[in-house]
Amino acid sequence: MATNQKDAIVIGAGISGLVTAKTLKEDNFAVTIIERSSDIGGLWTFRENDYGVMSFTHINVSKYNYAFSDFPFPESVPDYPHHSDMAKYIKDYASHFALNELVHFNLRVVGIEQEGEKWKVICNKVKEDGQTSAEGTVVYTCSYLAITTGHHAKPNWPKFKGEELFSGKIIHSVDYKDAVYNDFTGKRVLVVGIGNSAVDAAVDCATAGRCPSVYISSRSGAWVVPNYVLGVPTDLYACRFFLYLPKSVTNFVFGALISLVQGSPWKWGLNPKMKALETQPTVSPTLIHHIQRGNIKIKPDIKEIKDSTVHFVDGSTADVDRIIYCTGYKIDLPFLPKSVKEQVTVGESNEMQLYRNVFLPEIGASLAFIGFVQPASGGLLTMSEIQARWFSELCKGKIRLPSKPDMNADIKDKRELSQRRWYKSARHTIQQDPIIYTDEIASVIGAKPDLLKNPSLAWRLMFSSCGVSQWRLNGPHKWSQAAQQVRKVPIPPLWNITGYALVLIILGLLYKIIIYLVYLF
Amino acid sequence: MATNQKDAIVIGAGISGLVTAKTLKEDNFAVTIIERSSDIGGLWTFRENDYGVMSFTHINVSKYNYAFSDFPFPESVPDYPHHSDMAKYIKDYASHFALNELVHFNLRVVGIEQEGEKWKVICNKVKEDGQTSAEGTVVYTCSYLAITTGHHAKPNWPKFKGEELFSGKIIHSVDYKDAVYNDFTGKRVLVVGIGNSAVDAAVDCATAGRCPSVYISSRSGAWVVPNYVLGVPTDLYACRFFLYLPKSVTNFVFGALISLVQGSPWKWGLNPKMKALETQPTVSPTLIHHIQRGNIKIKPDIKEIKDSTVHFVDGSTADVDRIIYCTGYKIDLPFLPKSVKEQVTVGESNEMQLYRNVFLPEIGASLAFIGFVQPASGGLLTMSEIQARWFSELCKGKIRLPSKPDMNADIKDKRELSQRRWYKSARHTIQQDPIIYTDEIASVIGAKPDLLKNPSLAWRLMFSSCGVSQWRLNGPHKWSQAAQQVRKVPIPPLWNITGYALVLIILGLLYKIIIYLVYLF
Repeated sequence: MATNQKDAIVIGAGISGLVTAKTLKEDNFAVTIIERSSDIGGLWTFRENDYGVMSFTHINVSKYNYAFSDFPFPESVPDYPHHSDMAKYIKDYASHFALNELVHFNLRVVGIEQEGEKWKVICNKVKEDGQTSAEGTVVYTCSYLAITTGHHAKPNWPKFKGEELFSGKIIHSVDYKDAVYNDFTGKRVLVVGIGNSAVDAAVDCATAGRCPSVYISSRSGAWVVPNYVLGVPTDLYACRFFLYLPKSVTNFVFGALISLVQGSPWKWGLNPKMKALETQPTVSPTLIHHIQRGNIKIKPDIKEIKDSTVHFVDGSTADVDRIIYCTGYKIDLPFLPKSVKEQVTVGESNEMQLYRNVFLPEIGASLAFIGFVQPASGGLLTMSEIQARWFSELCKGKIRLPSKPDMNADIKDKRELSQRRWYKSARHTIQQDPIIYTDEIASVIGAKPDLLKNPSLAWRLMFSSCGVSQWRLNGPHKWSQAAQQVRKVPIPPLWNITGYALVLIILGLLYKIIIYLVYLF
Repeated sequence: MATNQKDAIVIGAGISGLVTAKTLKEDNFAVTIIERSSDIGGLWTFRENDYGVMSFTHINVSKYNYAFSDFPFPESVPDYPHHSDMAKYIKDYASHFALNELVHFNLRVVGIEQEGEKWKVICNKVKEDGQTSAEGTVVYTCSYLAITTGHHAKPNWPKFKGEELFSGKIIHSVDYKDAVYNDFTGKRVLVVGIGNSAVDAAVDCATAGRCPSVYISSRSGAWVVPNYVLGVPTDLYACRFFLYLPKSVTNFVFGALISLVQGSPWKWGLNPKMKALETQPTVSPTLIHHIQRGNIKIKPDIKEIKDSTVHFVDGSTADVDRIIYCTGYKIDLPFLPKSVKEQVTVGESNEMQLYRNVFLPEIGASLAFIGFVQPASGGLLTMSEIQARWFSELCKGKIRLPSKPDMNADIKDKRELSQRRWYKSARHTIQQDPIIYTDEIASVIGAKPDLLKNPSLAWRLMFSSCGVSQWRLNGPHKWSQAAQQVRKVPIPPLWNITGYALVLIILGLLYKIIIYLVYLF
């Protein structure tokens, strides 16, 4: 049993782990990353036999809003990078910031313990496949510990009446790589769920020459948005001007815009039970196309399964050979001590009780949960980055967390806010609007983009989503090229036009007021 | 050598042949259809080793505007039917109207001769494959002869410098069935041309798991329109209100609408050299998506080919293993006597000199060319149908063709009009706006939809594309269910709104005029 003394430990070498390690390293902590597999990149590294992306996955957030904030994508990469572009980009980042040498591979964390001011991290060695145990245990100690293993940890399996007698085969999306790899060609397929994985898998199955019939079953329906709205990547519409409007307005405007560009979701059988922005919209460039062609049929919730026939709650049926449960993941932190686990999670639900999604009031700044957020649009990466920067500032002692009672009160407030804001569903328990959330955390460390400090960017800060570098304009870890990067992010013409119209209206009102005052005196 | 006496003969059992035979039969002619292959349906019957659709082809006109006008598609068929839906529909039509018994299969027409008032049609027997000659000749005679073999008869092969030394393989789109069938998987592909076949083939190659790189080379670029614009099938926007506007207005409006919904074609490298409606737009639901993802790259014209490298006129290059020439077809009528051929075609060009695309002034009504039209939007079928109905009315002697000089003058006028209207290209020589063309022919036989005769449909006749049944409202061969079918065709909300706005403006103007007149007297 080896023991190493380190200042900070990061559990997981996925994107959240890498940005945390990079930030801490930059702030002169001695950092160790502990990784279960034999490679960095987490789910962005394609693995035939393990957890990760499907063979054809493209990220569904544009590269402007899903990138490391001080390491832009090469120009040649398309707006929505393929997972291989993503994996290469993550490796380039790790090389550029010399993070590879920090990673200890093939170690599964089996326990963490708090001993006075220190954290002890106990790891079992695993073999190259990342799964099978090998001989040996390693124990690390550190002052600061970041858990970055993500909330896509454990497949969530639903349970339907009769599924054990289903004559075909049922798999979870975690095991779906593509229709050819999974030998689905010629099979009739039912996909359960209507999130991004569900829709990606259904579209892959429905591609010409693959599966003769493809169904999607969904309990709550969905708003499905295309990759591009009016020729502009969809996530670029998430700007402060839009997000600051009342929710009833944004729900209406976004719903109307989506219905305008591709027809009402009810027309295509998607029947969403929630308003357009009460959920994380499912992003798919081609689902609607396949529904229009009759390649994919949308069904409601499953009532029961009999042999090869699936019965739905509306009385309709579908004969299928394969079912894919694209029903998401559960947060899984088996290495947490019981006492800590009880503070973090609420019973068996997917809900977490963390101060601003990162810290436990009882423990404080020495233990951070980085990346346990579900972005409503845009990507997780910037949220993980700002969490890591906050954590690092706390570790450095530059700032402090509020008192325990204040933190507990804040958790309660935010939870109530969240319940009003989002449609009730397991995946919404940790959902956040990325710009609003990142601004909130950024303002704590002084990194919030500021109209007064950045007057030349004022228009963009209101009407552009501004991309990932906007939180490197000010504060600690600021980056000299941030403003230049922000200027590269396209502004949707719709917002520019709306902006000009607003300016004209305001000028008109001012003119009226001045005229009125002139007459008055 | 057998000789059969028949009143009317139709050469070809594709859609144009079937509607011609059906119309003539309905008008009590004894009809024989002569078909080269052993099946009806022409290019809509999928054949692995012969002329016809690709394995994944969906028609790119909605079923509202591409259907037999008195035999609607079943409700269950999607807006854009698959070729198998289409083939079944054509067979159902043939069965319903008892056309199968009229067809003499496996006969290749090798000559036609005019003998007094009669036409002699000389056929060689061919084997089941439709290609290989068998023993025997059959000769038919008839009073009326319709040639319906279509203008997609002979592949058009371009010629590029160095192509004979290309190290890969070059095929014509006529031989492309799909990437798997043609063994293109893993190959780098260049598609030449940017019409519908080109784009369909490129998208098929670019589908995940097929070809690693796909290029499209085009001389003139293209306007690529999606299947749906603002949730409504694109061809439904072709209504009389829109088509009657000046061409400069429609070109601008349509171009702006396409650029609005999917971004400017220049943004995606499509670089069209013509205005939006100066050509038949290429219809593709997913080309832009694949360009956005970087799966398909658009290149200009080819300069030369060296080994496996294709050099383009802009200096860029592409290394490829396969080239598909999607460069269209030539009109091919090898069985025409030289004297007739010289009247029909202009030298080696694709241009035809027919009165309203159907008749030769020198010969008159006894010989009709049905289906030799290129629709600018919407489908060929209604144009073939109206031509067939015109032909039948002429055969019955109900109407007459104009004098030879009048017909020749009309051909000259229409040719000049066409040259002004369309971008100069081989495929535009026989191009027509389907609604305008069909109205023109329909008015000759009294079948033009009429605002006064159909007042309850007035709004639809202006703002809806109205579908195929609108020319069955009046005149010979009218259909009792036509009005009901016309009402089933969706009106694009954009046109409804525009219509309401126009009505309000007109009412406003009338009000002003009345007020003015009241003051005046």
